[in-house]
Amino acid sequence: MSDRPELEPWEVLASEMALDHRWYRVRRDTVRFPSGQVVDDYFISERPEIVLIFAVTPDQRVELVRQYKHGPKAVTLEFPGGIMDPDEDDPLGAAQRELAEESGVEASEWTALGAIWDDPSKQNNRLHLFLAQNARRVKVQELDSSEFVIREQADLKYIPRMIYSGDINNSGAIALATRALQALGLFPI
Amino acid sequence: MSDRPELEPWEVLASEMALDHRWYRVRRDTVRFPSGQVVDDYFISERPEIVLIFAVTPDQRVELVRQYKHGPKAVTLEFPGGIMDPDEDDPLGAAQRELAEESGVEASEWTALGAIWDDPSKQNNRLHLFLAQNARRVKVQELDSSEFVIREQADLKYIPRMIYSGDINNSGAIALATRALQALGLFPI
Repeated sequence: MSDRPELEPWEVLASEMALDHRWYRVRRDTVRFPSGQVVDDYFISERPEIVLIFAVTPDQRVELVRQYKHGPKAVTLEFPGGIMDPDEDDPLGAAQRELAEESGVEASEWTALGAIWDDPSKQNNRLHLFLAQNARRVKVQELDSSEFVIREQADLKYIPRMIYSGDINNSGAIALATRALQALGLFPI
Repeated sequence: MSDRPELEPWEVLASEMALDHRWYRVRRDTVRFPSGQVVDDYFISERPEIVLIFAVTPDQRVELVRQYKHGPKAVTLEFPGGIMDPDEDDPLGAAQRELAEESGVEASEWTALGAIWDDPSKQNNRLHLFLAQNARRVKVQELDSSEFVIREQADLKYIPRMIYSGDINNSGAIALATRALQALGLFPI
């Protein structure tokens, strides 16, 4: 035990899949807390890693995607991104693939902006954040049969107000934009 | 149909609970996409609403919580927050309750910073974001038996670099801090 026992990892006494489908997996753990208490119903969603891309064109436009999302049953405005395939272990390669497929965009300058947790209380995956500069639309979109994505662009200078106004209104997209704007010198560090 | 049929809500043909536990609920929908294609395995996690609070003291310190999170099996540094109880319908009241319980803090100036989606592809809940100013530690923490939370403070001026460095490293916390720093005039809008 450390001198901060409340930060010790929980001991996993048993583990089983409570939901095991290729599109959604939830693990049920029996864990012992630092207090010694044991609970048999701690659930964690096991998810694929995600890549998100803040792509800026030579004339300072940012690529966006507008699409219906079935969680809120609403249309959202976000940045291009998607899940890493099970056989992909390179987040940068996955980001380049997703940007090409979803927005038809290639970029010559890539900067990794770190990997962040999405919801660490309930799931195990990260969002791998990238800034892509000198981005150009070079082809049409290549979408899966379940993807209906309208690609848009916004002036880079309007992104902060789109965050504050709620035009961009989900946590992963705001986190990506914040780190990208910091890397570009448009938000203070 | 609108003139952008790809943004139309999906038609839900059937719906059932694939996992129905008080700590984790997943709904399985049979949906018809705008293309006409029908799939019987679109999963959405039904989750409680979340409140997150950026609490600033009179001497410009920000309340943080450090705790073990079982998703990544790692210790995270985040802002105070928690789930809204089923009988709570007022996000502000829930935020005031969570800040008092988790950090022992009361604040006299509250500003709503909007409600954002957490992961709209896979879940239906929002994060309700608040800025709490003139925040003061007035009592000890009141934690549930499964909560092990170390409360900390950081200088407000260091929050941007803590975001960029990865000291603050999850999407909801970064999104909250961004809107709060914008409301405080420390990030451009």
